Amino acid sequence: MHFSTQGNSEITNLTDEVKKYLKGTNLNSGFVNLFIPGATGGLTTMEYEPGLIGDLQQTFRRIAPEEIEYLHNATHKDKNAHSHIRASLIGASLSIPFENATLQLGKWQQIVFIDFDNRPRKREVILQIIGER
Amino acid sequence: MHFSTQGNSEITNLTDEVKKYLKGTNLNSGFVNLFIPGATGGLTTMEYEPGLIGDLQQTFRRIAPEEIEYLHNATHKDKNAHSHIRASLIGASLSIPFENATLQLGKWQQIVFIDFDNRPRKREVILQIIGER
Amino acid sequence: MHFSTQGNSEITNLTDEVKKYLKGTNLNSGFVNLFIPGATGGLTTMEYEPGLIGDLQQTFRRIAPEEIEYLHNATHKDKNAHSHIRASLIGASLSIPFENATLQLGKWQQIVFIDFDNRPRKREVILQIIGER
Repeated sequence: MHFSTQGNSEITNLTDEVKKYLKGTNLNSGFVNLFIPGATGGLTTMEYEPGLIGDLQQTFRRIAPEEIEYLHNATHKDKNAHSHIRASLIGASLSIPFENATLQLGKWQQIVFIDFDNRPRKREVILQIIGER
Repeated sequence: MHFSTQGNSEITNLTDEVKKYLKGTNLNSGFVNLFIPGATGGLTTMEYEPGLIGDLQQTFRRIAPEEIEYLHNATHKDKNAHSHIRASLIGASLSIPFENATLQLGKWQQIVFIDFDNRPRKREVILQIIGER
Repeated sequence: MHFSTQGNSEITNLTDEVKKYLKGTNLNSGFVNLFIPGATGGLTTMEYEPGLIGDLQQTFRRIAPEEIEYLHNATHKDKNAHSHIRASLIGASLSIPFENATLQLGKWQQIVFIDFDNRPRKREVILQIIGER
């Protein structure tokens, strides 16, 4: 899956596109593996609504602030140590089961990618669908 | 797997039930995928003893406190923004290998579900077992 | 995979060894599952450079400090509650896709194990490679 983000913890809802790929496989039951090839983005699930989007972004500002001192920023011009730290904490992989050709997500649960980098990026998330008819 | 929780970061030990399901498959080697369909619960592993259960709950109070201001709580009556945030941080999926029909957990390591919601819930955790005889 | 660590959040780069195992399978596409059997270590991905290694270690000191009071430490002599908490937060499992017999990691992204225990340890990380030729 390819898409563009503005970075700075922009959160992209990937659910509909994952559903589209799943439909294209004609598989009935199995699981979907998602992976972000990159060190400044992460994958998780959430209720994708404006309030929680802002709350989650604020949580990352609290856990790994941008403005504190980082060793990485002393030797790297991009000054995105906070992006790397947040990405390592949230994780690069995610696995979602499906049954009756339907993702087994909770009612309010969406699959999201968070771009922690501090600039606009073109991103790829790798999708693997494993299952049977 | 179906079970009830009291919410408020109650931690449920799922290890024995996962072992029971694994036994029922007669599979020898492979992996178990677990997934929580829902936006206010998470899966991880830990030494399931009373001290660490309390310590982990205290850690979540520190990382994503209940009583601070959240945008979600301004527009949603359930006031459980902290539950959502904690769930997104810990993650909804977990994968455990097995060999010789035995989960490859560490000696003190258990599979746990944490219910971050702020009320009692009936929960389902989806279990997929993939392997060979 | 077997290796030794000094503990105290030492971060070990597992990428080259995972690549070696993958090469030995002659598989073309699929995914690699990694799992740490143990309650005081975690797996994630990162740009493995000295600055970020120090920054990530510092982040864990901030999120789950060693010197605060933990219930676990009141009843266990090893005084490693912080090790357990950090391990549960970062997670025990990780899944990485491969295509054309090549891990689909980002350019700066490495697979790492973090040993949160407070003493030297001999460690095993379980590697499963699932795929097709």
